[in-house]
Order: sequence, then C-alpha cells, then structure tokens
Amino acid sequence: MSAVLERDVVSPIAAVQPKSAVRTVRVGLVGLGRVGQAVARLAPEAQRLRVAGYRVRVVGALVRDVSKRRRCPRLARITSNAAAFLRGDYDVVVEALGTVQPARSIVSRLLGRGIPVVTANKELVAAHGPELVALAKQRRTTIRYEACALAGVPFLGALAARPLVSDVNELTAVVNGTSNFILSKLEAEQCAFDAALEQAQALGLTEPDSSRDLDGIDAADKLALLASVIGWGTLPRHQLRPQGIRALTAADLAAARSFDRTIKPVAFATRIGTAVSAFVGPAALPLSNPLASLHGTLNGIRLHGTFVGDLFFSGPGAGPDITAATILDDVVESVATTPTARVATPPVTPISPLVAPPPTGWLIRATFPGFVPDAAALTRLFDAHDLHATRISEPIDRSRWLLVAPIGHEALSPALACIDATHRIQTHAIRSL
Amino acid sequence: MSAVLERDVVSPIAAVQPKSAVRTVRVGLVGLGRVGQAVARLAPEAQRLRVAGYRVRVVGALVRDVSKRRRCPRLARITSNAAAFLRGDYDVVVEALGTVQPARSIVSRLLGRGIPVVTANKELVAAHGPELVALAKQRRTTIRYEACALAGVPFLGALAARPLVSDVNELTAVVNGTSNFILSKLEAEQCAFDAALEQAQALGLTEPDSSRDLDGIDAADKLALLASVIGWGTLPRHQLRPQGIRALTAADLAAARSFDRTIKPVAFATRIGTAVSAFVGPAALPLSNPLASLHGTLNGIRLHGTFVGDLFFSGPGAGPDITAATILDDVVESVATTPTARVATPPVTPISPLVAPPPTGWLIRATFPGFVPDAAALTRLFDAHDLHATRISEPIDRSRWLLVAPIGHEALSPALACIDATHRIQTHAIRSL
Repeated sequence: MSAVLERDVVSPIAAVQPKSAVRTVRVGLVGLGRVGQAVARLAPEAQRLRVAGYRVRVVGALVRDVSKRRRCPRLARITSNAAAFLRGDYDVVVEALGTVQPARSIVSRLLGRGIPVVTANKELVAAHGPELVALAKQRRTTIRYEACALAGVPFLGALAARPLVSDVNELTAVVNGTSNFILSKLEAEQCAFDAALEQAQALGLTEPDSSRDLDGIDAADKLALLASVIGWGTLPRHQLRPQGIRALTAADLAAARSFDRTIKPVAFATRIGTAVSAFVGPAALPLSNPLASLHGTLNGIRLHGTFVGDLFFSGPGAGPDITAATILDDVVESVATTPTARVATPPVTPISPLVAPPPTGWLIRATFPGFVPDAAALTRLFDAHDLHATRISEPIDRSRWLLVAPIGHEALSPALACIDATHRIQTHAIRSL
Repeated sequence: MSAVLERDVVSPIAAVQPKSAVRTVRVGLVGLGRVGQAVARLAPEAQRLRVAGYRVRVVGALVRDVSKRRRCPRLARITSNAAAFLRGDYDVVVEALGTVQPARSIVSRLLGRGIPVVTANKELVAAHGPELVALAKQRRTTIRYEACALAGVPFLGALAARPLVSDVNELTAVVNGTSNFILSKLEAEQCAFDAALEQAQALGLTEPDSSRDLDGIDAADKLALLASVIGWGTLPRHQLRPQGIRALTAADLAAARSFDRTIKPVAFATRIGTAVSAFVGPAALPLSNPLASLHGTLNGIRLHGTFVGDLFFSGPGAGPDITAATILDDVVESVATTPTARVATPPVTPISPLVAPPPTGWLIRATFPGFVPDAAALTRLFDAHDLHATRISEPIDRSRWLLVAPIGHEALSPALACIDATHRIQTHAIRSL
C-alpha cells in the first residue's frame, strides 16, 4: 500500500491550497456497472478530494465484457482477466460487482495481499462480512462497506469501529428505497401498485431483479449485514422469510392514515439476552416514529443501544452517484490510516434459531364477500377469536381495517385462518409497531 | 504511542473470547469533573470494550484539587501539577476540562509529543479546532472530539474524515438539550418558563453557568465547531449574536402549534458561494421538519450536501454517562489506527463578514395594551408596513400571533419598531423556517 506523495499544482485548486502535497491514490475497480462507472466519473471531477489532499486515480478495472460501451472516462487498463487485474498495483480496490461470487474470491485475494478493499456489495458483506473483516485485520488492512446500507449516510463505519455505540439491542430500519418509494406513491397518489412500480422502474430505481426489492430480499441482506456489524453474529437467512410489499394497496395506506399511522417497508431485529428475533416486511408505524416521515426513496435507521439510548440516522439510500461519493469517502479513509496492530476479533457466532418477534399490534384488512358488518359486529367477531380491536376504519369498498392489540404471530395466524374459514372473510395482516 | 499487547484471561469474557490478545490502553485524564469521573467509572466496567479487544486503564489524572471527593474508582496517580502529569506515559489522553485555557496549552503539548487526544471540550474545539487538527496531522497523531456536539451520535468523526459527505451547503441543528427540554416542557405542560427551568436544574441538565444554555452561547460554540469540521473556516463569533430562549412562553408554543409548527432552539448556517450566513436562536419549524420531532433533551442535525443531499442524525446530546461512552469509543479509535502520512491540511480561512441570513418567515407575537384587534384589522395594519400575514392566531389574553411571509431581518426589524411605536403594540419576532 505505497501511496505516492507528489508536488502538484492544479490551477483551480491553487487558490485553496497552493503547491501543497497532494497524495495520489491508485484505485482498481472490480466491476464497471452503474456504480463502477459513477466512481470512475466522480473521482477526477470531485475538486473536494483535491482540497482534502487526495488525487484519486482509477488505474484499472476488471469487467466481464471489455468491449461494452460505458459512460465514464477511458481507463488506462481494463481487462476481463482476473489474474491480470490482480497483478496491478493498487492503493485501494473498489469492488462493485453485486453477487457473492466471484466477488468473495477476489476480495479475499486482495485482503490477503494486504490491499484495502472498499465494497458496495451488500450480498457479499451480508453473507461473509465477519470472515472478510477478520481476514483484513489479520493482514493489518481494512475492508470498508459504508455504501452497503443507507448508501449516503455515514454510520456503518462508526458502528464497526466504535464498540460502545454499537452495543445495540434493537434496530428498526427502512433500508429499501424502492419499496419505500412505491408505498409513498400509494399513499400520496392513491394509485394502483403496478402504476407505482412503473414509476419506480421509469426512474431507474428498481434493481435488475425487482424481486430483490419488492419481496424484501434486499432488505433481508441489509438486516443480516447490520446484525453482523453490531456483533450479533450471522442471521440464519433461511429462517428470516422476508415479506414483500406486493399485497399492499392504496386503501391499506389510507386506512393506516386514518389510524394516524403509515405503512413502511421495515427491517426489524431485537436481542433479548442471547436470543435474537427479526422480521422483514411492511409495518404500520405511528406518525410520531421518525421512520414514518421518510418519504420517497429515503432510508433511515433507528437504534436502541445500551450505552447511548436511541439514535436515528436517515438520508438517501441508493443511486449510483451517491453510492460513488460514499465509496470515494471510503477510499480516502482507507489510505488515511492503517490499523496499528492485530486486534483480537471476537469469533463470529451464528444466531440460531431466530426466536419469534415479541407480540406487536397488527393492522388487519378484512374483506367481505358481500355485506360489510358494522364496527360493533366486527369487534364481537374478532373478540371471539381473542383479537381485540382498538380501532376500526370506515369501510372502503368491501373492506374494513382493524387495529388489534399486541399479540404474537403464532396466535394471530390460526385465529385469522379460523375467521377466514368460518365467515368467508379474507384477512390480510400487517404488523403495527 | 506504545500500546501493550498481552495475554489476558478474564473469566466473564472467556466464553466470548477465550485467551485472546487483549490490548491494554493507558489513558490519562485531564479534568475529573462529572464527565471525567464517568469515564473513570465506565472504562473498567464496560465489558463490551474487552469483547472488542481493549482493556482501557485510566492510569492518571490532572485535576485542580487533589483532595476533592469524587465518585469514581481510585486512580494510581492523581496530581494538580501539569508538568508531573505530562511526564506520564499514555496511549491516549482524554481532556474534559471545559474552558479554552489551560486546555489549549495542555492539548498542544500532548499532540506535539505525538500523543492522541480525545476531547469533550467544545469551547476549545470551537475556538481552536483547525489549529489543533493541523498540529495533530503534522505529528502524525489525532485529536478526536465526537462528544463535543450531539454527544451520543457518532457523526463528527465521519464528517472530519470523509471529504465528500462533509461538503455541506446548509445545516440546521438542535444542539442544546437544555433549551430543547425547556421548550418541550412549555409546549407539553403549558407551564411558566421558570418552572420549566427549575425542572431542568433539578435533573442536572443545566451547565454550571445556565446562561451558556439559555442564551445560545453553547449552541453558538457548537455551530462554530460544526462550521470548522465541514471546512467552512472560523465563524466570526462576535458577529453571530446568538438569541436565547428566555423571552418565550407556553402561549408562543401553543400559537405555533395552531399553525402546525413547533419552536425549537436552532443553530443554522448556510453557504452561498463563498459567503456564509448563520443564526442561533429559537425558530418555528413545520411539524414535517425532522427537527420538530426532537422532544426533551434530544439533539439532531440536518445537513444538505453537494454529493449526498439531505442527511439527518439525532440522539442524546449530553449527559456524563453518554459523553463518557462516546469518549471511550474515541479512545478505541485513537489506538486502533494511525495516520499513514502527513496529508496537506487546507489553510483555515476566517469567514468574515457573516452575511445576513436569507429571508425567512417569522412568527410574530403582538401584545396589545388594551383592545385586541380582529384578524382583518391586524392584517391591514401589518400590510401597511409590508409585513404580509399568512396566518393569524386566536387571541390568548392580550396577544395574537401572526405568521408572516418571508422577509429579511433588516427589513423586519424597522417595520416592527414602527408598528410598536405608532400603535403601542409590543411585538416579538421568532424566525419561522
């Protein structure tokens, strides 16, 4: 990791920092998709890096297809041969591929050689973060991944480096901007789900595989990543079973609003002793919850910790340019300091099994085949199944919404199944936090 | 900075981290007031530090009065002799004195010797931050000050280390927990100002000199600190003239609420080209502003930046235990890495003069000597002075509140003076953002 110090006089900078030492940082890029291209564009453009004393040069890239046209400055070396790329001389390598393999092998090779890595690959960090961090520590280098969740908000680096603030007992987050955008549209424009999805696609907000956004897979990856950063260990992903947002309608959002709530795509995890429970799915939040005020593509996270109590962070969650800015800040941090010594890494413990989330309230949509019962009748019907409604909405078409008192999913689920079967009602339940 | 690596077996940790290398960090404490004592108590107690691989030992303290009784474990060395203290061997020194001198001299001496410093002294960092950071960089060491603003929220370190996210054009913050507590009480309990202040004092929330909280001096210090961290330079404090919250009443808060606003103690700064404008004082915020939802002693900050757009951070702003946790996290960061090389420090430019803040709306309390005019008459009266009311409250006692359309303070001030003189009205203006 030999960064070059050189005298540098560039006229637009001269006024700010005349003839001062600007350090050149040679960056290798693994992956030159939307994020990689944005990094290659921003690095030479961002005057602010020069003012801070850094000239970031992208000196080479590893890509799948060399001949593809890309919207970024021409790079000195671009190859599809991993071995050739790995022979290059880099101060930092930025990995922006987006699936576990081949990223894992490449990143391991680089860390093994003591080269700092910056990654925006949440799937990689969710699945192998602790193992890569341990490898980096062993080789006295670093792996940074600030862009992997709440891409524009610098907080993961702080959690990773600061043992006391990261002693978190509970976290609630909105980490998928596309889902949040769609639910915000359903609320504001009372449009159909597909119309909102089309708007998201037109704005380039969906991942290539929109199921990752809409079915909670992306949010589950980020929740796993968060759980590992705060030292809880590895979430058993197969037990998590994320719920998506596809079943939601504008009427659900309107009903929630009539209860002074809004519905957000939530990732939640809590620790009670050594047990962990978690869920990923839409949840009705009171308007006083700071997550409720995150409109459009904004992301946010609320942490409750042992030492500092409640923290809240929010900001833009994605987008190539924002992700690139965060990556370049990680690049600067990677070369600005080095780990002083090998520090013990706590062993990574798998969390297993996940225990059931604590009882929560529920927002229940009840759709009736014909006649819609009045509130009193509906209350009696639900009471008979030990589901106690605290609020009941006015009907919209053939549906009414109920807010029911806290109960665990294991009790709710059979009660609703029984109501559906006995009374030919179609119910749909959303957690209410 | 020679940290000792040693084999360490401590039984409660053994389960988590058997026989692993725990690094001992020798800490010197400058100042043993409420924050210093909290650091001395928390360092040996916090298991989480051990799990992360650190044993933080407070090995000595510099105090004004050695004989004073203190609520913390007995320290090996405690002295009132600065020269004797400075002869000690420390991996990190924590400075928690709270005024510029003698802190500035001591911190400079330590940084000059290459010893990392962690400080919670916002007056020091507000006045001399850039100079101390430059000295630290020159000696390849660090000064960290995460606890100086929004004490529980890790964000200053990220802004200091990350050039792109810290390219901020505008910031709005609630940074004084005591003022926020008092305004929250006025709103929730409709009590008198003095009753709210007494509650704050009973909870130990006020600084020894309550004027620092109530008159905006503490907030102005923190605003100056923030401006220097994001690279704007040194705020000319004598031009800032902070406004305090002493003139506010429960009726002001109620009137603001009737306009869907709340009043918060705000520190605001914006940059237009190379010009900077700033103010510190109470401001009416729409309830949709995330700062409006910060109740009690919570602090928060909203940043608008060139590269990542809007960010928001909030959490506890003060308290000895929270401050101590943040300081210990800074201690860990101080020994975990070292700066790789001298990096150019941009010269620190004084910001002078401050330009007037951009026009904003205003919440105006108008108190009448006798007869309270109706809304139409009041609108005409204000219109005649080019102050255009968009909302007028119902009267409370002999006052009405008006929300007036955006106008600069330089135009508002003579208009109100004229209204007061001509019509024997007493007006009081609060910014409305």
